[in-house]
Amino acid sequence: MSEFASKYETLLLRRERSRLYVTLNRPEVKNALNPTLIGELRAVFGILRDRRDIKVVILRGAGGTFCAGADLKNMEQSITERRPGERDPIALNNREYGTFLEMVNTTPQVVVAAVEGYAIAGGFGLLCVSDVAICTEDAGFAMSETAIGIVPAQIAPFVAARIGVPQTRHLALTAARFKGPEAQRLGIAHHLVKDSAALDAKLEEILKQIDRCAPLANALTKAVVMKVGSEPLSSVLDFAADRFAEARRSPEAAEGLRAFAEKRQPKWVTE
Amino acid sequence: MSEFASKYETLLLRRERSRLYVTLNRPEVKNALNPTLIGELRAVFGILRDRRDIKVVILRGAGGTFCAGADLKNMEQSITERRPGERDPIALNNREYGTFLEMVNTTPQVVVAAVEGYAIAGGFGLLCVSDVAICTEDAGFAMSETAIGIVPAQIAPFVAARIGVPQTRHLALTAARFKGPEAQRLGIAHHLVKDSAALDAKLEEILKQIDRCAPLANALTKAVVMKVGSEPLSSVLDFAADRFAEARRSPEAAEGLRAFAEKRQPKWVTE
Amino acid sequence: MSEFASKYETLLLRRERSRLYVTLNRPEVKNALNPTLIGELRAVFGILRDRRDIKVVILRGAGGTFCAGADLKNMEQSITERRPGERDPIALNNREYGTFLEMVNTTPQVVVAAVEGYAIAGGFGLLCVSDVAICTEDAGFAMSETAIGIVPAQIAPFVAARIGVPQTRHLALTAARFKGPEAQRLGIAHHLVKDSAALDAKLEEILKQIDRCAPLANALTKAVVMKVGSEPLSSVLDFAADRFAEARRSPEAAEGLRAFAEKRQPKWVTE
Repeated sequence: MSEFASKYETLLLRRERSRLYVTLNRPEVKNALNPTLIGELRAVFGILRDRRDIKVVILRGAGGTFCAGADLKNMEQSITERRPGERDPIALNNREYGTFLEMVNTTPQVVVAAVEGYAIAGGFGLLCVSDVAICTEDAGFAMSETAIGIVPAQIAPFVAARIGVPQTRHLALTAARFKGPEAQRLGIAHHLVKDSAALDAKLEEILKQIDRCAPLANALTKAVVMKVGSEPLSSVLDFAADRFAEARRSPEAAEGLRAFAEKRQPKWVTE
Repeated sequence: MSEFASKYETLLLRRERSRLYVTLNRPEVKNALNPTLIGELRAVFGILRDRRDIKVVILRGAGGTFCAGADLKNMEQSITERRPGERDPIALNNREYGTFLEMVNTTPQVVVAAVEGYAIAGGFGLLCVSDVAICTEDAGFAMSETAIGIVPAQIAPFVAARIGVPQTRHLALTAARFKGPEAQRLGIAHHLVKDSAALDAKLEEILKQIDRCAPLANALTKAVVMKVGSEPLSSVLDFAADRFAEARRSPEAAEGLRAFAEKRQPKWVTE
Repeated sequence: MSEFASKYETLLLRRERSRLYVTLNRPEVKNALNPTLIGELRAVFGILRDRRDIKVVILRGAGGTFCAGADLKNMEQSITERRPGERDPIALNNREYGTFLEMVNTTPQVVVAAVEGYAIAGGFGLLCVSDVAICTEDAGFAMSETAIGIVPAQIAPFVAARIGVPQTRHLALTAARFKGPEAQRLGIAHHLVKDSAALDAKLEEILKQIDRCAPLANALTKAVVMKVGSEPLSSVLDFAADRFAEARRSPEAAEGLRAFAEKRQPKWVTE
């Protein structure tokens, strides 16, 4: 079983039973994404792909903010030469963030984003690949890229998957800034809370709710849901039927149905 | 012309002009779906496919509740042996519910779901393939499968088609329970009413509104809308143009345009 | 560079810096769409495809209403003979409106729709291909086609792209009439304003906000967003990475990043 590093430069990791708390830890720059931070996040989610003992990943930012997007200091240095006949290294580097977002989007764990402060640009994209998002009312959001002459290239497709193409057009082409209530109205946030204290309380409530869901069943369900839209309906339904049978023949379903008949809470292996 | 049975074991059918009221009728188990009920519903929708004289189907549950999902008593007995080289009979059986939901989803009639009490799991999936959903404020909804160790396999794709993948991830992976106002906010319910009496009144209002729509035009329109997303835009538009011409050359359009010019309500054949 | 005509029969055009105001100008029939109006709009958007000096198109209707849909007077005369072996001329004619909507939908400029009065049927479809829609509270909306025996054939796919298939089923199959607040709730309108005076003010505010976005970056961003859903995610992300590199190597990004470092507003070429 792959193991997490004992220490990360830009992340704080904390394991608690089947929960993994992953905290972006560059508070001095509002957790701006630099290559080290993205690399460490990729390493963590690479390991998570095969870790069935971890059921939930909690994404949060240190210092009272989620993530302010790409570290522009880094971006200013990023112009490198193109070589004839090769793909532009700027494009190759940009594309990697999309690969990372896709990893988070399809990780078998439930990803809970706890958002306060800011979730801007690349940080906004990261929020949009969570399964459950809890945001404070005064948290600030924006796809601000076009206001500095660049393109929200790798995040726009994930934002569009979250809130639809029409709302993404509006946000991206006006670089609109908005707050928690609008994030909830658009379907970016599932839960809206008053402040950071309420965020802690709601997070714990959600985690307890997820505790009640069977871990294998959840992982299989996420695999089914994430197939929707990328394959014809009939093949999604075929895939889903096989996942149903897999869950149904597992000890989980046996325990779940027994508990239901005995009118008690089921007990899952990860708890 | 195919005919409905004179009597069903688990359904109540009532025909009124161009309306067919289909009531799930196992109130003693909150209209839980067993093989008989699903089989009778499939038979009814199989007949409806070719019945142009029926314009609207009203789905409701007996005893003040819509549908509590799969009958778990039945599911406990459902473990059957796999034979080598054959597809798992559990998967095959599960897959049939998706086939049924797809029948309802694409039936040429307008499907109106009138929901009070509970619409849970498979019953929630049935609600999500309606064209118009009216729900009471205190109606209860949930994708509760993972809380008993199974997967909302056949319903998740239809829920995702209704409310999008991101809201489906949240509901399915937390087994969240919620009420009518949230169902309306998510786009599950189109109309929210106070109680069952208000549900009757709103249903009648909606049915009168549908009376004003031409039956062939409605069936052709539904065929167009249901193609969106499963084919490239240009072929949907080509298909739509042919349906437009079909309607435009029909007596319906002649009557509709004449009535418009004469400033009177048009008269459709099914009324 | 292609130029606009000096005068249109059914349109008013006004250029102001990088903004093009396009006003439907048949107020005596609530700007109903006849072949001349559609032809002139197509000509304008045909020219806009290559006009990088125009960054925003503002669509509005003369006389206090947006657009009441197809001119039914015209439609009554539209029955023409079919010739054996050829496609129905009614279908061919209908299909052209979809081609037009697709042109507006994918034009490189930001399309802002300013809606008061009515946006019905074909006019509702036109609203649904805007990037930003501002609507008054008492503006009236409907997909009213089936109530006169025809099919919202070319508009339904664009409405479904705007608000999803399930809400489109509801609107199209009941011919429901609704007002601004519901249009905002459904995601048709991004901004809701009290009346026409407030519409002017909000429009100016939005246009200033768009001024802050870089024109090339906006055009490239729109191209990325409009690809979502029509191609597999990985190819959208590849395309997006190339657009990112294109923007990043442009003078715009250089100016944008410099302005950011110098804590000042960037200056774009179109201003």
